[in-house]
Amino acid sequence: MAHILRVTSGDDRLRDYTSLRDTSLRKLLETERGIYVAEGEKVVRRAMEAGHEPRSFLMAQRWVDALEDVLAGTDAPCYVLDEDVIEGLTGFHVHRGALAAMHRPELPDAATVLAGARRVVVLEDLVDHTNVGAVFRTAAALGWDAVLLSPRCADPLYRRAIKVAMGAVFRLPYARLDDWHAAPVLLREAGFTTVAMTLGDGAVPLDEVRSDGPIALVVGSEGHGLSPRWEHESLVRATIPMSPDIDSLNVAASVAIAAWELRA
Amino acid sequence: MAHILRVTSGDDRLRDYTSLRDTSLRKLLETERGIYVAEGEKVVRRAMEAGHEPRSFLMAQRWVDALEDVLAGTDAPCYVLDEDVIEGLTGFHVHRGALAAMHRPELPDAATVLAGARRVVVLEDLVDHTNVGAVFRTAAALGWDAVLLSPRCADPLYRRAIKVAMGAVFRLPYARLDDWHAAPVLLREAGFTTVAMTLGDGAVPLDEVRSDGPIALVVGSEGHGLSPRWEHESLVRATIPMSPDIDSLNVAASVAIAAWELRA
Repeated sequence: MAHILRVTSGDDRLRDYTSLRDTSLRKLLETERGIYVAEGEKVVRRAMEAGHEPRSFLMAQRWVDALEDVLAGTDAPCYVLDEDVIEGLTGFHVHRGALAAMHRPELPDAATVLAGARRVVVLEDLVDHTNVGAVFRTAAALGWDAVLLSPRCADPLYRRAIKVAMGAVFRLPYARLDDWHAAPVLLREAGFTTVAMTLGDGAVPLDEVRSDGPIALVVGSEGHGLSPRWEHESLVRATIPMSPDIDSLNVAASVAIAAWELRA
Repeated sequence: MAHILRVTSGDDRLRDYTSLRDTSLRKLLETERGIYVAEGEKVVRRAMEAGHEPRSFLMAQRWVDALEDVLAGTDAPCYVLDEDVIEGLTGFHVHRGALAAMHRPELPDAATVLAGARRVVVLEDLVDHTNVGAVFRTAAALGWDAVLLSPRCADPLYRRAIKVAMGAVFRLPYARLDDWHAAPVLLREAGFTTVAMTLGDGAVPLDEVRSDGPIALVVGSEGHGLSPRWEHESLVRATIPMSPDIDSLNVAASVAIAAWELRA
């Protein structure tokens, strides 16, 4: 059973929860401390169900009751404060009640994630957490098996990504590749047809892409699209035909369309 | 040429720009005053190119120079203030510089929008401006012709919707239906096959939907999906097959997939 502790807002043990709205501060601290923050009863439950380990909890008394079953299964401390004090501490309205500082799970390596997978999404340098979360949600819903992230791709365990993904970041296996340069070869040697989504010339219309084997769908960042290396190294360059006066599709919409069209 | 006026932040003529971050206040004032606020040089340009009429502009001096060509074509007043004062007045960082209070264009009626259209998206009670904007962007990119909105559907000219739509709310014709009850019959009599997206039992998998004629793709609100009336009245009830452990797709992702699959 978690240790239920009434604390005051100045308590140093609450440092994982201070100023959570400060994006850059939060990113830095989360990376340095190896935690992410789960917000809301539902997200806390999903994180625990996924086997993630809590470092601590922070909630008002009524959530201690609501999460009794979850707290019963851990020895982590649960700090209890009034809701308005939590709001002052974290910097936002905690209408979903409970917070948990969770240890970041050790991610599997790419080979583990790819083993047995037939459909994977590969994200190069997406900067928007909403897009990362949306890709996870859609990929999971359409039966895709895994996600691979470039070294600089936005974090799926950031608050906005978790929220938009509706928990899919806890369910869908993913790995972060250290050696992005080697990624095209890695995927090819693992038997994947790499299909790069592009707006460049000479690409195949999406509905003409054919592959019997495993597919890796590769998409680039919101601003610049795929890097030249991926454009060059992918086995297939595919495009979604668009109206002549439209710049582009949002990357999450592109992934939704391509993940549907290329589903197993 | 616009009248360039140096003003102070207390000037009553700036009331269209005060506290723009207060969502409920802003919605109410925009509705009452019949305006919407275009934010950023690019959006202001697109709004003007779409033929919308400005009531006034608000910007720092450097944007007066950047928008000289736009201001030359109107008689509306352009209020000039320092950027930090604009920030204090509006409540947010105006890093995209220029603002314009635009008269809301008179929307065409549904019959006008439907005339000649072969593909229309019908939105019932979407509450999230991001989703509304995303639907417009995707529909425009995939060559759909128009959008119909239910009486309570979120406003495409709200700031977040405009931003996410990347200007598509200015390009894609849309109408708001007053008599939502009559909408299924209206569409049928206009020759459209109404295809309702649903998670309900007995729906046809999306890729088995067949129609030679015009299609109206109907989607429901984020929380509850389509109303029973639409579920009952649509000619086709379609569903996107999903993994068994996933609740649903985001509505914008659903529209992206269905608008692709049912494209003309």
